[in-house]
Amino acid sequence: MHIVTLAGGIGGARFLRGLRTTAPADQITVIGNTGDDITLFGLRVCPDLDTVMYTLGGGIDEQQGWGRADETHVVKDELAAYGVEPQWFGLGDRDFATHIVRSQMLEAGYPLSQITEALCARWQPGVRLLPMTDDRCETHVVIDDERGRRAVHFQEWWVRLRASVPAESIALVGVESAKPAPGVLEAIADADVVILPPSNPVVSIGTILQVPGIRDALLPKTVVGVSPIIGGAPVRGMADACLTAIGVETSAQAVLSLYGSDLLDGWLVAPEDAGVALDGVRVEARPLLMSDPAATAALARAALDLAQELTS
Amino acid sequence: MHIVTLAGGIGGARFLRGLRTTAPADQITVIGNTGDDITLFGLRVCPDLDTVMYTLGGGIDEQQGWGRADETHVVKDELAAYGVEPQWFGLGDRDFATHIVRSQMLEAGYPLSQITEALCARWQPGVRLLPMTDDRCETHVVIDDERGRRAVHFQEWWVRLRASVPAESIALVGVESAKPAPGVLEAIADADVVILPPSNPVVSIGTILQVPGIRDALLPKTVVGVSPIIGGAPVRGMADACLTAIGVETSAQAVLSLYGSDLLDGWLVAPEDAGVALDGVRVEARPLLMSDPAATAALARAALDLAQELTS
Repeated sequence: MHIVTLAGGIGGARFLRGLRTTAPADQITVIGNTGDDITLFGLRVCPDLDTVMYTLGGGIDEQQGWGRADETHVVKDELAAYGVEPQWFGLGDRDFATHIVRSQMLEAGYPLSQITEALCARWQPGVRLLPMTDDRCETHVVIDDERGRRAVHFQEWWVRLRASVPAESIALVGVESAKPAPGVLEAIADADVVILPPSNPVVSIGTILQVPGIRDALLPKTVVGVSPIIGGAPVRGMADACLTAIGVETSAQAVLSLYGSDLLDGWLVAPEDAGVALDGVRVEARPLLMSDPAATAALARAALDLAQELTS
Repeated sequence: MHIVTLAGGIGGARFLRGLRTTAPADQITVIGNTGDDITLFGLRVCPDLDTVMYTLGGGIDEQQGWGRADETHVVKDELAAYGVEPQWFGLGDRDFATHIVRSQMLEAGYPLSQITEALCARWQPGVRLLPMTDDRCETHVVIDDERGRRAVHFQEWWVRLRASVPAESIALVGVESAKPAPGVLEAIADADVVILPPSNPVVSIGTILQVPGIRDALLPKTVVGVSPIIGGAPVRGMADACLTAIGVETSAQAVLSLYGSDLLDGWLVAPEDAGVALDGVRVEARPLLMSDPAATAALARAALDLAQELTS
C-alpha cells in the first residue's frame, strides 16, 4: 500500500515516526512544506524538511523538537560578534553544516529535491522525502506594529515576534509560478491513501495545498486528516494565530471545513470534539496527543485504519 | 612616517605584531596576499588576510599560527559526515563564521576590500589591512603524481600534499586582468618606507608583486626586505619547495637576487648569511628568528631603522 503524507515541522515529523512503525517506511512518501524556508547569512535554511529528516534520521533534539541533538552554537555567537543580523534565529553548528551543504549544491545548480535526496542519503529517514516544490516561494505575513504596517518573512513573525503581533494576512509569495517538485504528482497518483498529520493547517499543510496541481491531484484520493486542534486550542505551536489571520476559528470543526469535503474523506478528532461533522466526511474520535511513541503509533494506526476502511 | 608592508600569512602576521610595537599602528598599511584564497563548501576563505586580522586582533591560535584560539570543529565533522569534500582543509567553527560573513557580503556585491574593512571593524588590528586586489586570482601549481600531471589549487598542494610532490610550475591564474585594490597604489605612493616581512617570496610576497602596477609603484620607494631564508633553509614553512619550483636556490642570496636591486634598497639577513651581497642593496646581518615578542620587535625595529637610514 502506497501512502502519501503532507508534513510541516515538529508535529508532522513526530506523526511520521509513528506512521513508520505501522507501515513499511519505503511505502511512505512525505511531501514537505518549504514555505517557511529562509535564506540566512547567505545560506538556504529549510526548517520543515530538516525537522522531518533529523527526526526520522535519529538526529533531532528530542526536547526541543527541532534542530540537532547535542548541538553547539559557536558559529551563531561568532556571527553575532560580527554584528550580523538576524540574531533571533537559533542555528546551531551541526545544523549550519546542513545549510552549507544545501547552499553549495543550490549554487552548483541542483534542485532542492535532489539536494534533499542527497542529504537524506546520510540520514536514512526510511520514507521518501520530497519538497513540495523546487521553486522558491516563501510565506510572508502582513503585520502592523510600532514600526508600521509591513510584510515580514514568516520566520520573523513566528520566531522573532513569536506570533505576538496579529497577522493581517498570510501570503505564499511566488506560489503562482511554482510547480510541484519532481515525483510529487507521481507519488500522489500512485498513492492508495493520503494522510494529513496534525501539522499547521495554514502555514504547513495549507501551504503545500496551494502549490498549483497538488490539491487537484489529491481530490480523487482517499484522504484522512488528523485535527491539529483539540477543544479550541492547537495541540502545539501557534496555529491559532495563523487560523485567526485567515478568518478561521480555532476548532476541529473549522479546520475540517477549511480543508473541505472535496479534499477530506476522513477526519480524526479528539474525544472532546466528538460532535464535529461535515457531510461527506467520516469523523472519528481518537486520542490525538502524541505524548509518547506508543500513543503516536496508535494515532498513526488509527488514521491509516480509517483510510483503509474508506478505500474498501 | 607612513609604512607599507606586503604580507603573507603566519610569518608576515608575526612580523607585523612586532612592527606595531615600534611604529604607530595607524601609520601602517598592510597589503595582504589573496593568491591562496579558495572557495570551500561555497564559502570564500582568505587564509592570509584572516591570519593577519586574527593575529593583530588577538584572536589567533598562537600555537598553530593560523585559525582561531579556542577553536572547535563541529561544522567540519558534520560536513565530513555528509561526505562533502575536501576534508583536508581544517576550518574551525569560529573561522567558519568569518567565511560565512565574507561570502554573504560578496554575494551582496561588496568588494573584498570593503569586506575586509568590515571584518576588521570587529578585530581592530590597528593597522590598515588591504587585500592586494579585489579581483579573483588564485595560485595554482602544476604537479605530476600517481594521478597524472595536472594543475591543482595552491592549497591542495600546500595543505593536502604538504608540498611533498614537486611543483613543476606555479601560476597566479587571472592575475593579468587583476587590478590593485582601492587604496593600494595610494598607500604605496604615500609611503615613506616599505618593508617586506620574511613571508614566502614566491607565493606570498611574489604573488602580491605580480599584481599589475604594484611592483612598478614600489620601485621608486625605499624598500627593505627581511630574508625568509636562514643558512639555506626557510625560517618556517615550505618556501624551499616554492623556490625550487621557480628555479631559485633556497638561500638568502638567491631571494635577494629574485627581488632584485631595482626593488630592494636594504636586505636583512641572519648572521650566518653575512656574506650575502648585491650591488645597490645595503645588506645587514641581524638575528632573524622571531622566537618571542622581544626578538620580533627587535627585528621589526632593525628593518625600520635600516629603511629610515636609507631614506635620509
